[in-house]
Amino acid sequence: MNIPAPYLLMLGETKDPLAIKTARGVHYWRPEKCLGQLRLNDDVPSLGLPEMDIETAVEKGAKTFVLGTANAGGVLAEHWIPMIVDAIERGMHVASGLHQRLSDIPAISEAAEKAGVSLFDLRHYKEKLDVGNGKKRSGKRLLTIGTDCSVGKMFTTLALEREMQSRNLKATFCATGQTGILVAGKGIAVDAVISDFIAGATEALSPDCPPDEWQLVEGQGSLLNPAFSGVTLGLLHGSQPDALVLCHEANREHIRHMPHMPIPTLQDIIDLSLKLASLTNPNPRFVGMAINTSMLSEEEAKAYLQGIENTYGLPATDPVRFGVAISSTT
Amino acid sequence: MNIPAPYLLMLGETKDPLAIKTARGVHYWRPEKCLGQLRLNDDVPSLGLPEMDIETAVEKGAKTFVLGTANAGGVLAEHWIPMIVDAIERGMHVASGLHQRLSDIPAISEAAEKAGVSLFDLRHYKEKLDVGNGKKRSGKRLLTIGTDCSVGKMFTTLALEREMQSRNLKATFCATGQTGILVAGKGIAVDAVISDFIAGATEALSPDCPPDEWQLVEGQGSLLNPAFSGVTLGLLHGSQPDALVLCHEANREHIRHMPHMPIPTLQDIIDLSLKLASLTNPNPRFVGMAINTSMLSEEEAKAYLQGIENTYGLPATDPVRFGVAISSTT
Repeated sequence: MNIPAPYLLMLGETKDPLAIKTARGVHYWRPEKCLGQLRLNDDVPSLGLPEMDIETAVEKGAKTFVLGTANAGGVLAEHWIPMIVDAIERGMHVASGLHQRLSDIPAISEAAEKAGVSLFDLRHYKEKLDVGNGKKRSGKRLLTIGTDCSVGKMFTTLALEREMQSRNLKATFCATGQTGILVAGKGIAVDAVISDFIAGATEALSPDCPPDEWQLVEGQGSLLNPAFSGVTLGLLHGSQPDALVLCHEANREHIRHMPHMPIPTLQDIIDLSLKLASLTNPNPRFVGMAINTSMLSEEEAKAYLQGIENTYGLPATDPVRFGVAISSTT
Repeated sequence: MNIPAPYLLMLGETKDPLAIKTARGVHYWRPEKCLGQLRLNDDVPSLGLPEMDIETAVEKGAKTFVLGTANAGGVLAEHWIPMIVDAIERGMHVASGLHQRLSDIPAISEAAEKAGVSLFDLRHYKEKLDVGNGKKRSGKRLLTIGTDCSVGKMFTTLALEREMQSRNLKATFCATGQTGILVAGKGIAVDAVISDFIAGATEALSPDCPPDEWQLVEGQGSLLNPAFSGVTLGLLHGSQPDALVLCHEANREHIRHMPHMPIPTLQDIIDLSLKLASLTNPNPRFVGMAINTSMLSEEEAKAYLQGIENTYGLPATDPVRFGVAISSTT
């Protein structure tokens, strides 16, 4: 999957800011890939990009029409089809993170075939995958590991890539989810592959590389999230990380959407991750903590991070609030 | 997936005994479901069932035509299609464990629609699944856990079902792989679902049940097999086992197909399984060891099992050699 940029980001028709989370992520991390936005009405939140219709975007060089919205059920709105077909007929590729495949909609797949453009169904990986083999690969790998879903693993991984590259280190973000794939222009949504291939997909995502290169693998789920732990373990074994960064949200009390499941302690996740990671890496270690402190005041956040540093002996930061470049919060 | 019996088992055309592993498993555990066998030439190993062509099988009441073979690549032989269509036109359902879907072959899917029969693609689950939720369910559950793949988890689970039922205990085998599904007539191949749904599929397979019922969940893979660990962890969290049985092959030195990966110790698997299982069950425990001792003489096997019992304080047996009814091997 290699998604040609620049993109025209289609932001849909609802005023829910969460619905444009994917588009927002792409714009935040790769503004240079985002040529314009297309909102279907004035209530839709704006990313501040130039408003553009399909015709104008194509004139200005847009290569891919990105359905940058998430919606309940993941089904494509019927009345979007003519707009998508129009983009295709004008020569744009189309990328979608919806569960429903673009390629399963005859009007869209026929138009794409006729126009010779690609349909990128980010949640569906079509290429052949092998099962994992656990063999040591050259180069270095870092994986973000969370106490839960949605604690900032993608953000942290991308922030590390940006910071490492600014220091002239060889660092490459390896995308494992739909937003990450649009940011990187490539990747595999590991939670969408057949379960026998989780580790194999991760190995394919982070292949042999030069000894001084760091592949920064975007984590998913949590080893102690009862819905998604399998994905997380496959990612851990497949990415054979040399370095791990623990991601956590301060004051989150239970696993997302599961009031009956308390959030594990950081120590639990550290111990479990190292134990399991040692299967495919002889010497994995945690190198830092990335804490989402949005529920705390700035003073509280600093105290919280200091407490974590004292307890675990690792640098701790909130990547959104304080960046990842600092060596200590105090 | 509810596969109507009795079956006509199609054994294919190769003389490799491993190619009919699935058919052999179904015949061993559910002889009453197996009406006859169809071999495409005389070199094919026999299960000892009556030889039957499709026409005769239908006359005798066969309900499902089972492609009981595994082959490299999992692709259906082109020249089998007319035979399958014939079975369909005579009113039989068709079940296949091949990777290639029956429903993707137009001649077969059209014939099935016309005849009003079902196509069971055992490696592909079509129903809607929810993600796991980790909520405690009523009834009791047992899961077989292995040090690797192919160490006897299905055999052990079915042997326990048979023994428990013979003692008038309520015990139900929950199938998670293709052979198990043909044996039980239902189930979900958890290694073939989208990875986000491993735990959810397992929860659906082992739902709330009466307090005195035991659901015996067929394990898959191993927590320390770098290819399939994700599937195993999803199964462990989804099945929330009260009881675990450890399955192992004596003298296996490395993970199957991976000479670079040593087999974990039994203690490693026990510790890791209990630690991880405690997320969805407050009190999981190992209740026994099922060891494949086929590489040992009978005397050696007995000594090996005695050693295991002494070390771990749990009953140990080889279910194939000594059954699961014995309380001790000596």
